[in-house]
Amino acid sequence: MDQKILTRENLIPYYHQVLLVLEKEIAEGKYATDSLVPSESQLMERFGVSRVTVRRALSELKLHGLVRSIQGQGTFVCAPRIEQELSALTGFVEDMLEINFRPSARVVKIEEVLADEKISRMLKLPDSAPVKYIERVRLANGVPLSFDITWLPEQIGRDIVTENLAILPIFSLLEDKLKITLDHANYRIESIAASEAVARNLEIPQGSPILLIERTAFSPEGTPVDYEILHYRGDSISFSLKLKRKQPPWKLEDLGRFQKI
Amino acid sequence: MDQKILTRENLIPYYHQVLLVLEKEIAEGKYATDSLVPSESQLMERFGVSRVTVRRALSELKLHGLVRSIQGQGTFVCAPRIEQELSALTGFVEDMLEINFRPSARVVKIEEVLADEKISRMLKLPDSAPVKYIERVRLANGVPLSFDITWLPEQIGRDIVTENLAILPIFSLLEDKLKITLDHANYRIESIAASEAVARNLEIPQGSPILLIERTAFSPEGTPVDYEILHYRGDSISFSLKLKRKQPPWKLEDLGRFQKI
Repeated sequence: MDQKILTRENLIPYYHQVLLVLEKEIAEGKYATDSLVPSESQLMERFGVSRVTVRRALSELKLHGLVRSIQGQGTFVCAPRIEQELSALTGFVEDMLEINFRPSARVVKIEEVLADEKISRMLKLPDSAPVKYIERVRLANGVPLSFDITWLPEQIGRDIVTENLAILPIFSLLEDKLKITLDHANYRIESIAASEAVARNLEIPQGSPILLIERTAFSPEGTPVDYEILHYRGDSISFSLKLKRKQPPWKLEDLGRFQKI
Repeated sequence: MDQKILTRENLIPYYHQVLLVLEKEIAEGKYATDSLVPSESQLMERFGVSRVTVRRALSELKLHGLVRSIQGQGTFVCAPRIEQELSALTGFVEDMLEINFRPSARVVKIEEVLADEKISRMLKLPDSAPVKYIERVRLANGVPLSFDITWLPEQIGRDIVTENLAILPIFSLLEDKLKITLDHANYRIESIAASEAVARNLEIPQGSPILLIERTAFSPEGTPVDYEILHYRGDSISFSLKLKRKQPPWKLEDLGRFQKI
């Protein structure tokens, strides 16, 4: 029994304390994705609480999307299912800490390459300018969530790639180490099928749906400082935003005119 | 020869006049997706212009993403490739007219159904309230671009489904016919694989990447008036937006603390 984890000293009900402990343990990676969480009886014994309390905690965990039950088999840890607001330019570590997921990264590749036509256009560099190319897998609670490719202008990139990019986020390095102000970014969002490389890095089947974000971050003067292609697991993330209505410059009765086009 | 199409009476250069004619014809569906556009010689003869002029027009068409050349085979009409700004609540017909694509729709199904748990939550209706269910394929220049499912509260829906939804957009009917003000919408964006039904309606292989938009539109009082799930062909659309930087409430040097989680 592990009752010392729970306390009567505050007003948080037992079921909620059990919930908080389990949420923390899932975030810490104590239970892997698709692994069984302990049974009701095991949890009752560990926390010294009633079955009703354990069931309520598990039911809240389900509502939070952290676990799912399969009839006759038990309760399993879900892959992270993250709904993220698309309201400001923020980086992966910032996004994950905001929603209490544990961020980590695996650096796959760091290279110096020559900018092709696309990269030089996005970073406003001369053709074939040297740029730093960085591939990272970003993990949430230990599960690969996004495969990120970053291109940085050489002058900026050379002070970034010497840092430990498995731990330190590039946006924070740009702002806090290089004192470069990030002002805004242009986003482009599309849906693609995972290529062999993307699938391998995200540990998902080739052809799986990927939410791709192409993003260029700019200084206040409008200089591009960072160009990225983020490949998010489609089954793990969605983005939300709120948009105000903008009425078209025509009315219902004008539509006949357009239909003739 | 079709030189009367071109005119010397304005300052628009010939290549641009040819471009405008071909753009209009592609928008009108004169050339189907993946069909050959006429050869350089045919276009030279038709418009009575030089090869240089025709090549310049075709090269601009390529830059606009309307045609592509295949070495040794000719120039083909592309599936619509649409980049759309995600800056305001707008409907499909509005979006297409804005970028000079010809919108049309095919109504697949109109039914009265009872709201399940999800629908009653999204439309803030009692469980099992009657709602109108509408399936439409939305086409751009005659090519299926989006498979849309709409749920409308019964009171609103009954005045909508009597209209010709192959031509009239629901947003315009809500605003101009029913005098309901649309104020804003909540969007959720994700990437999924096309189900059998979505694939059939969009005429694409099952499992193809789909950019899914879930959208609830609200009146100024916050009453949901329209709930939709839009399934866009992933290979045909991308959404763009610009976001301002919002710095995290921590600095680079604080990160060690978080890594210990």
